[in-house]
Amino acid sequence: MGELRLDPMTARWVIISTEKDFGPGGYDIESPIIEGGVCPFCVGSEKMTPPEVDADRPVNSKPNTPGWETRTVPNKFPALKNEANINRTGVGMFDMMNGVGEHEVIIESPDHDKQLADLDIDQIKKVINVYKRRCITLGNDDRFKYVLIFKNYGLAAGASLEHSHTQLISLPIVPKRVMEELECTHKYFDYKERCLFCDILRQEKGYRHREICENDDFMAFSPFASRSPFEISIIPKTHQAYFSDIEDKQIESFSRILKEILMRVKKALNNPPYNFIVHTTPLNGNNDAQEYYHWHVEIMPKLNRVAGFEWGSGFYINPTSPETASRYLREVKI
Amino acid sequence: MGELRLDPMTARWVIISTEKDFGPGGYDIESPIIEGGVCPFCVGSEKMTPPEVDADRPVNSKPNTPGWETRTVPNKFPALKNEANINRTGVGMFDMMNGVGEHEVIIESPDHDKQLADLDIDQIKKVINVYKRRCITLGNDDRFKYVLIFKNYGLAAGASLEHSHTQLISLPIVPKRVMEELECTHKYFDYKERCLFCDILRQEKGYRHREICENDDFMAFSPFASRSPFEISIIPKTHQAYFSDIEDKQIESFSRILKEILMRVKKALNNPPYNFIVHTTPLNGNNDAQEYYHWHVEIMPKLNRVAGFEWGSGFYINPTSPETASRYLREVKI
Repeated sequence: MGELRLDPMTARWVIISTEKDFGPGGYDIESPIIEGGVCPFCVGSEKMTPPEVDADRPVNSKPNTPGWETRTVPNKFPALKNEANINRTGVGMFDMMNGVGEHEVIIESPDHDKQLADLDIDQIKKVINVYKRRCITLGNDDRFKYVLIFKNYGLAAGASLEHSHTQLISLPIVPKRVMEELECTHKYFDYKERCLFCDILRQEKGYRHREICENDDFMAFSPFASRSPFEISIIPKTHQAYFSDIEDKQIESFSRILKEILMRVKKALNNPPYNFIVHTTPLNGNNDAQEYYHWHVEIMPKLNRVAGFEWGSGFYINPTSPETASRYLREVKI
Repeated sequence: MGELRLDPMTARWVIISTEKDFGPGGYDIESPIIEGGVCPFCVGSEKMTPPEVDADRPVNSKPNTPGWETRTVPNKFPALKNEANINRTGVGMFDMMNGVGEHEVIIESPDHDKQLADLDIDQIKKVINVYKRRCITLGNDDRFKYVLIFKNYGLAAGASLEHSHTQLISLPIVPKRVMEELECTHKYFDYKERCLFCDILRQEKGYRHREICENDDFMAFSPFASRSPFEISIIPKTHQAYFSDIEDKQIESFSRILKEILMRVKKALNNPPYNFIVHTTPLNGNNDAQEYYHWHVEIMPKLNRVAGFEWGSGFYINPTSPETASRYLREVKI
């Protein structure tokens, strides 16, 4: 089982995988996406994955057999395992806890050759519904403080399999980045008595030069202080703290704006690798956060390399202004 | 000139380069290291760089001519420029300041084919002395709060030129990552009345399983909560807040341990790309920080890809324990 360790310098928790525990031979810096062998996410390969925990399939079809439209399975190489109670301990001066959590893979479609941007709206709605169902199911386990939904598309963005999929990790801690956002939005709320995200929406709506597209329920824009080029935020237009509170009408409009944005990214940037992450309010925690935190999606095309400067300083150099990025994304013909 | 912008969600400052302001065509995801053309850092190419600001060269030799042993020049494509006074403003609800700073390149040797690990101790001492001189010179400008020294080795680590060099950026803000370290070490000092780094040194010394090597003045080890595989810290054994306070005797021993660590990394990990960064106490700031902050060097071989999970969460998954990493690095024959 992996371990969670706290870096006393930054209060950042890290998962240490004592199970794989790679030596130097464990890394293959330029390993290609697996294309030759049998894809474990394809129809007919159901036995190659751990047994499914969720699927869209006809009522009369058996689990782990063909016929599904989406399929969710535990990750074969999980970063965390759901085996025990959470145990915090000290090791000398350091602090750690055991690596309890769920790590799942959502296979988005039976079609090996279609990426998320290529799926039709009905199929994307099924995918978003799976996100919601898994968030609710895992959120009911009160050991977990966070459910993180993220997608790596392309090798440079960290994907190791080509067949379109999303990952989901439930965690006994709130990730550092989300903690930072919670602290800042809390301070803002204390001062202004308004949600920071709602204020940003109003600001971007009036300014328009960072807006990319919108519909009834969502707006997509390039954030004012984007860390990486062509970074995009998608945010619900009315205040909503938890992703898992997304309603049916919103699922439809979220699916539409997500497809539109992914198609714009694909077209404007020549099908780049990208990362996509859902930020939501922590579970089972301070209920006040519902007032000041507002769920949203971050999309980061992987265009430049993160170098020592960014890594070591947490200080990012972004060679494209968000105004330029949003103009390209807004104007590209899709 | 670039802009510094504050992300209100994380209090993280970002440089926005309005000057280059790349469109999609500005990115070349797999651009190779320039090897064919004339190297601007080689002897004889002195006119290809901006005029030097520092050099080790015979007293009778003219600036920007051959004969040098190290050479420091302004970066031809600086992230920041040293042109004006610092000006903080609001833009609607957002905050920004102009991008004032210095961005320099330290060419470490006239020899195009030798990397830092390959240089002899006398040459490495010259390089460390340049780091010190430039820190002192730029630290005298009271507009700057931080001088960041970092090195990208290899394309995957962000280097765009092969000839061995270090970069240096002076900043009007303290980088986010250093701020986090300052906050944590401050809290630790408030509680324990001891420097956190000094305590970590004592702990690692007693435990030995994360130590890699040491000499009279420095110790190198794998940090308890390493974010990335084979991450290394080098730290002075006696409390020292500012890198620029390094003494002649320490420069000798720092050069020795740095060469040893880089040779161990090269041998154990097959000459990987890596990033190297010096963390030091901020300039012109709170003098209390001298008590609780302790300069150190972080070295991160670039072995795995940072994916959406890490980016979006600030929560890193490290597939090699620091105990395993330090064993490989300790035991490799150099």
